[in-house]
Amino acid sequence: MTQHQVTTDWKGNMQFESNNPSGETLLMNAGPENGGVGEGLRPKALMLASLAGCSGLDVASLIEKMKLAVDDFKIETTADLTDEHPKIYQNVRVVYHFYGKNLEESKLEKAVNLSVEKYCGVMEMFRKFATVAIEIQFHHA
Amino acid sequence: MTQHQVTTDWKGNMQFESNNPSGETLLMNAGPENGGVGEGLRPKALMLASLAGCSGLDVASLIEKMKLAVDDFKIETTADLTDEHPKIYQNVRVVYHFYGKNLEESKLEKAVNLSVEKYCGVMEMFRKFATVAIEIQFHHA
Repeated sequence: MTQHQVTTDWKGNMQFESNNPSGETLLMNAGPENGGVGEGLRPKALMLASLAGCSGLDVASLIEKMKLAVDDFKIETTADLTDEHPKIYQNVRVVYHFYGKNLEESKLEKAVNLSVEKYCGVMEMFRKFATVAIEIQFHHA
Repeated sequence: MTQHQVTTDWKGNMQFESNNPSGETLLMNAGPENGGVGEGLRPKALMLASLAGCSGLDVASLIEKMKLAVDDFKIETTADLTDEHPKIYQNVRVVYHFYGKNLEESKLEKAVNLSVEKYCGVMEMFRKFATVAIEIQFHHA
């Protein structure tokens, strides 16, 4: 069984520093409107980076394995928060954008579907609390 | 209704760059054992930073509002991954450590409970896919 451990240290005011299995650290902070002073990422939206990064790594790995020609690739994640506390993400939209001259659409769709349906653990966690909509857009150069 | 949007760009190999409502960006990457080259945080473990940061901000805000004397404060998050794909966090343990000479235990417990039960949206999302255990440890200087 694999276990992940993260330690998050209070740096005073509203700033926190967290470590990561990579050995790197990141700063988190509230916005100025909530008393934040100085640098730091907003923690809740890190969930959306985690979702896109998890699935993006699957797709990048499959692009290489399937020898697909992709010039550029990005993922847009949009999430609606509920109005009442505790505020959670309820409707989440994940749009995969592929750019290139020789995009093989059906193979790229297969790569995305493998991540969404089989490999991406963060996607599976999101499905337990939100409705997740997936979209793929091809931008032929 | 509040909406959060994050864009995640492929930087080649297994590296991705994500933005954040703070205006800052972060790098994500696979480990070298999975083809990662160069800098970048492991995306799944960002979920644990998000959880600790979300709750940490609630508690830091309450420490200030309740005028509590806390010299230092950290949160340890530990999560077991399931064995089969898609690998999700199943058992999550969140330990709040408070350090100081005049720690008011009952008030700090109240602050943590307000975050855990009422305010922290990331905690609520975690409860939808994992069993979350909470612990508070006081370290009197």
